[in-house]
Amino acid sequence: MKIAILGGTGKEGSGLGYRWAAAGHEVLIGSRLAEKGQRAAEEMRAELPAAAISGGDNAWAAAGGEIVVLAVPYEAQEGTLADVAGVLGGKLLISVVAPLGTPKARYSPLPSGLSAAEEAQRQVGENAIVIGAFQNIAASHLRDLNHDLDCDVLVTGEKAADKDIVIGLCADAGMRGINAGGLANSAVVEGLTAVLLGINIRNKIADAGIRITGLPEGGK
Amino acid sequence: MKIAILGGTGKEGSGLGYRWAAAGHEVLIGSRLAEKGQRAAEEMRAELPAAAISGGDNAWAAAGGEIVVLAVPYEAQEGTLADVAGVLGGKLLISVVAPLGTPKARYSPLPSGLSAAEEAQRQVGENAIVIGAFQNIAASHLRDLNHDLDCDVLVTGEKAADKDIVIGLCADAGMRGINAGGLANSAVVEGLTAVLLGINIRNKIADAGIRITGLPEGGK
Repeated sequence: MKIAILGGTGKEGSGLGYRWAAAGHEVLIGSRLAEKGQRAAEEMRAELPAAAISGGDNAWAAAGGEIVVLAVPYEAQEGTLADVAGVLGGKLLISVVAPLGTPKARYSPLPSGLSAAEEAQRQVGENAIVIGAFQNIAASHLRDLNHDLDCDVLVTGEKAADKDIVIGLCADAGMRGINAGGLANSAVVEGLTAVLLGINIRNKIADAGIRITGLPEGGK
Repeated sequence: MKIAILGGTGKEGSGLGYRWAAAGHEVLIGSRLAEKGQRAAEEMRAELPAAAISGGDNAWAAAGGEIVVLAVPYEAQEGTLADVAGVLGGKLLISVVAPLGTPKARYSPLPSGLSAAEEAQRQVGENAIVIGAFQNIAASHLRDLNHDLDCDVLVTGEKAADKDIVIGLCADAGMRGINAGGLANSAVVEGLTAVLLGINIRNKIADAGIRITGLPEGGK
């Protein structure tokens, strides 16, 4: 699959791209500046010579990907989407965005009363189908392919078939994806990122994560 | 410790009370009707003859407990707290309440923009210190003492010392409690209950839970 990553030079986006590229997907690293995206792609290719990775600006990546991942800080979400909305063409748009609030690690609802993923859906309208995922995944070990990631991915969105595609991408990146309900539940998943950040700080660790327990074999 | 459980005849409240009584705490089962509380206590004593369990109405329980647990449905929270606020005397009030929204399993913020735990704190003011905990724990296996509960308890509140007391009560009930930050984070924990309910429904199970991963031994 051709996966475009907007904000693909950041730790989270580049880590996911790295894992997907290693799993055989074609990865398009998008950045605000085309040159930064190209340079990040080049560095990744140096580590994964067999992988298909290219870089450019966010609009270039969004136009070229079959699936688009939004991996920018919340503060850059609206501007980034304004740049790319016209070229999304109804694709799946996976939101990795987790607003962290002020102070950090303390949940504060967005002024809209929506999650970042719902705000994204409202902004792009018919141009894309937003799915929430990967907000809780610590970036620290994504680029170490030998590291077993001890965390699940809560996947939110309106249609199970779309979420199944994303659950497949979770598996390709070495994680278990779980259908966590409608897009409205993204507020919970995004808020969990702030909670995990606080747990990291208090326990002086970098990668607190969550697991869903009680699922049967093959549950999702 | 003397632990009062408001709504102690419900599945969640009675299950927690059962575990605490079995662990040696004195448990006061409160209910809207004194007679219902007494009957529930009697039934529990029949199963745990060595335990100290008594029952009565919610105000009686709230007055007698050293720690008070609010385990009523969200719809009954305001009325219950109005009945007991005057006798709380500055105690810890543990909120187990998780509003489930409509439709169920889909997160919807409360009209106040607060969590149920924050609403409780606002209502009782100086009369109690609210701590959020146990909202995500499936009631199904609480009364089976041989069942290892595969879930963590996210504990929210303003003061670490108060949360440490509740983390101790988690251990007494066979669970790991984790400091999940300030009371504002209760919205995330409460919302997670709706997410877990949806996971239960889709996977035809009764006890999806969460675990925090990445914590060092003894982390909290």
